Amino acid sequence: MRPRVLSGMRPTGSLHLGHYHGALKNWVRLQDQYDCFFFVADWHALTTHYEERDVIEKNVYEMVIDWLAAGLDPEKSTIFIQSRLPEHAELFTLLAMGTPLGWLERVPTYKDQIDKLKDRDLATYGFLGYPLLQAADILIYKASYVPVGEDQASHVELTRECARRFNSLYGRAPDFAEQVAATLAKLSKDDQRYFEKQRKAFGETGAAEALAKGEGILKKAAAQVEGWTAHDSELLAGHLKGSGKSILVEPQALYTENARLPGLDGAKMSKSYGNAVLMRDDPDTVAKKIRGMVTDPARVRRTDPGTPEKCPVWALHKVYSDEATQEWACKGCTTAGIGCLECKQPVIDAIVKEQQPWRERAAAFTANPKQVHWIVEMGTERARTVARQTMKDVREAMGISY
Amino acid sequence: MRPRVLSGMRPTGSLHLGHYHGALKNWVRLQDQYDCFFFVADWHALTTHYEERDVIEKNVYEMVIDWLAAGLDPEKSTIFIQSRLPEHAELFTLLAMGTPLGWLERVPTYKDQIDKLKDRDLATYGFLGYPLLQAADILIYKASYVPVGEDQASHVELTRECARRFNSLYGRAPDFAEQVAATLAKLSKDDQRYFEKQRKAFGETGAAEALAKGEGILKKAAAQVEGWTAHDSELLAGHLKGSGKSILVEPQALYTENARLPGLDGAKMSKSYGNAVLMRDDPDTVAKKIRGMVTDPARVRRTDPGTPEKCPVWALHKVYSDEATQEWACKGCTTAGIGCLECKQPVIDAIVKEQQPWRERAAAFTANPKQVHWIVEMGTERARTVARQTMKDVREAMGISY
Repeated sequence: MRPRVLSGMRPTGSLHLGHYHGALKNWVRLQDQYDCFFFVADWHALTTHYEERDVIEKNVYEMVIDWLAAGLDPEKSTIFIQSRLPEHAELFTLLAMGTPLGWLERVPTYKDQIDKLKDRDLATYGFLGYPLLQAADILIYKASYVPVGEDQASHVELTRECARRFNSLYGRAPDFAEQVAATLAKLSKDDQRYFEKQRKAFGETGAAEALAKGEGILKKAAAQVEGWTAHDSELLAGHLKGSGKSILVEPQALYTENARLPGLDGAKMSKSYGNAVLMRDDPDTVAKKIRGMVTDPARVRRTDPGTPEKCPVWALHKVYSDEATQEWACKGCTTAGIGCLECKQPVIDAIVKEQQPWRERAAAFTANPKQVHWIVEMGTERARTVARQTMKDVREAMGISY
Repeated sequence: MRPRVLSGMRPTGSLHLGHYHGALKNWVRLQDQYDCFFFVADWHALTTHYEERDVIEKNVYEMVIDWLAAGLDPEKSTIFIQSRLPEHAELFTLLAMGTPLGWLERVPTYKDQIDKLKDRDLATYGFLGYPLLQAADILIYKASYVPVGEDQASHVELTRECARRFNSLYGRAPDFAEQVAATLAKLSKDDQRYFEKQRKAFGETGAAEALAKGEGILKKAAAQVEGWTAHDSELLAGHLKGSGKSILVEPQALYTENARLPGLDGAKMSKSYGNAVLMRDDPDTVAKKIRGMVTDPARVRRTDPGTPEKCPVWALHKVYSDEATQEWACKGCTTAGIGCLECKQPVIDAIVKEQQPWRERAAAFTANPKQVHWIVEMGTERARTVARQTMKDVREAMGISY
């Protein structure tokens, strides 16, 4: 069994080169090594686009076609739609019961987004719970790895905390609580209180200091409490760390070096900035867009030498051009040997060439929508089998499997 | 079709006389008039008891037996278990996307409970969302009525707000948004801004003042804006009120006069106070509990006259005794004609008599657990049919029914 990788994407518009180089290219690579589950995060799109139903509906299958065009292979990867699996919502609801509000309020992306998208009424209960729904998406497939950019590392950390807390609450022998209570009773009242305080602090924040302080109490007890056994220490150490039987799997972040593509205006490529080259733009559109792209603002005339580091086209060269071409562009720019349009041509050619297989595959799938539906259907049913088994384990552990 | 009533109860322990007189007796009455759906709210129990899995597991079927003992008739009422229907979680998750955090933070019971149960780690995401999960429980069955005590009126109000907002977001003609935008554009920028501000305020708070101010703008437009039509006014009035096609039904609160039974110590009867007479306590236990019950603290000796209003036994007389007995007790107490034990005897007799049919029915169901499971199974499948249809409507309206 290859370890499982899970990732999703929100269906908020046609994918562009930024999506490809930032995520999809990596997905295509991962599918050879891992048991990959890739899903259309349509519920997540609702957290920020809940007023735009048409956007989401239209984009779901179009996005799957973009994925397939990029080279996702349904024989290797499981491709499915989040909203088709109510199990995600069930796990989200169950995890919600044990998740302190503070965990969610402290997620760095939460406040960021609230500030960035002020006009969007983001302060909803669902938006606050966004990373928790993500945690459910990941945990329900017992994924070992989640490919992330650095800005999402905190989401994986939250997912790990959720798994840890769940396992600690429910992954116990039935008489674990009694055993713990009996052992705690051997400590002085003050030590009990102090130990429980540290345990709680560690459970909520993961602070190493709290863990060390709690373990200090156990060392003290081993030295001073009459009749204290090694089993007592072990039991309370497990209680302190919150470790229990592992029902949910703590995933690891899979950091990948992803090129961050500049858009036509030099800012990060993003559909909402209107600066994107779409994966399925036709060659003429690509040429037109790149030709209109901003360059080094200091290079006003053809005869002015330019500074590649200040030119977003140079960033595209670094992604798309071989060394010889890069050298040519760099030299041509700094010596005013070539004009900007000239410099852009190899980039245009490279993008058009990169798009060629995408266009072909997309054309085939677009002509055969039933096949796309079938791929999603198969993926969804495969995902459902895994999700149902996890929910069975979860319900049993929680004692609600009647 | 009889209008539907929905109610639930958390399986946190054996039911007592307080549950019977506070809720169950009313349920038994309602089932003759309404299409009643009664459910075991086990997920809700997890919001406050998530660390006590054994408590919940044990109590689910025991509680159903208490219900059946009290006289719920599975031929008339649909009896089911919340956690068996992931659809509740799905609707909860979808409603979450459009529910402002403020709605939940302002629910009066939220802060009350946080204060009351300080030792329980209540500040979880799930606990904050408790009334929203309740809203999903209600809305998924398109219930017309929800029997509530006054302290829960705010929950029904939140449910109504959720339904209204959902209908307003998703119960639209596909081009509603464009129509609204075109009509708004006929107003001056200032009026547009002011109108939208009032609309938002009304949507979030339901304040009549905001509604009136918004309608003021429409009146002004009708008088002053050239080419303004009656259709324009109608359209924006609908936009202002947030009314759309009704997909989710706004339920009504069904207020019922419920006797609030005193417990053995005079405080409200509650299992957590340890002052309850259980529905299935045997006659000896009932007699022992009532005999040990506190009475008017001023009546120290048998020869001291008492004040019934200060005696919790008198409150039980008012529930359990006929007028003649009440008169006898009142007179006997105030004149020191009877002792407290004497006074308690008719109450003991009445409770034991009231329990008689419960005990008989409970004995039959306890002897036949398969029948109880069957009743729950039938109820759950009936509920599932309704829940699935609602979710189909909801997904279609939201544009995620691919």
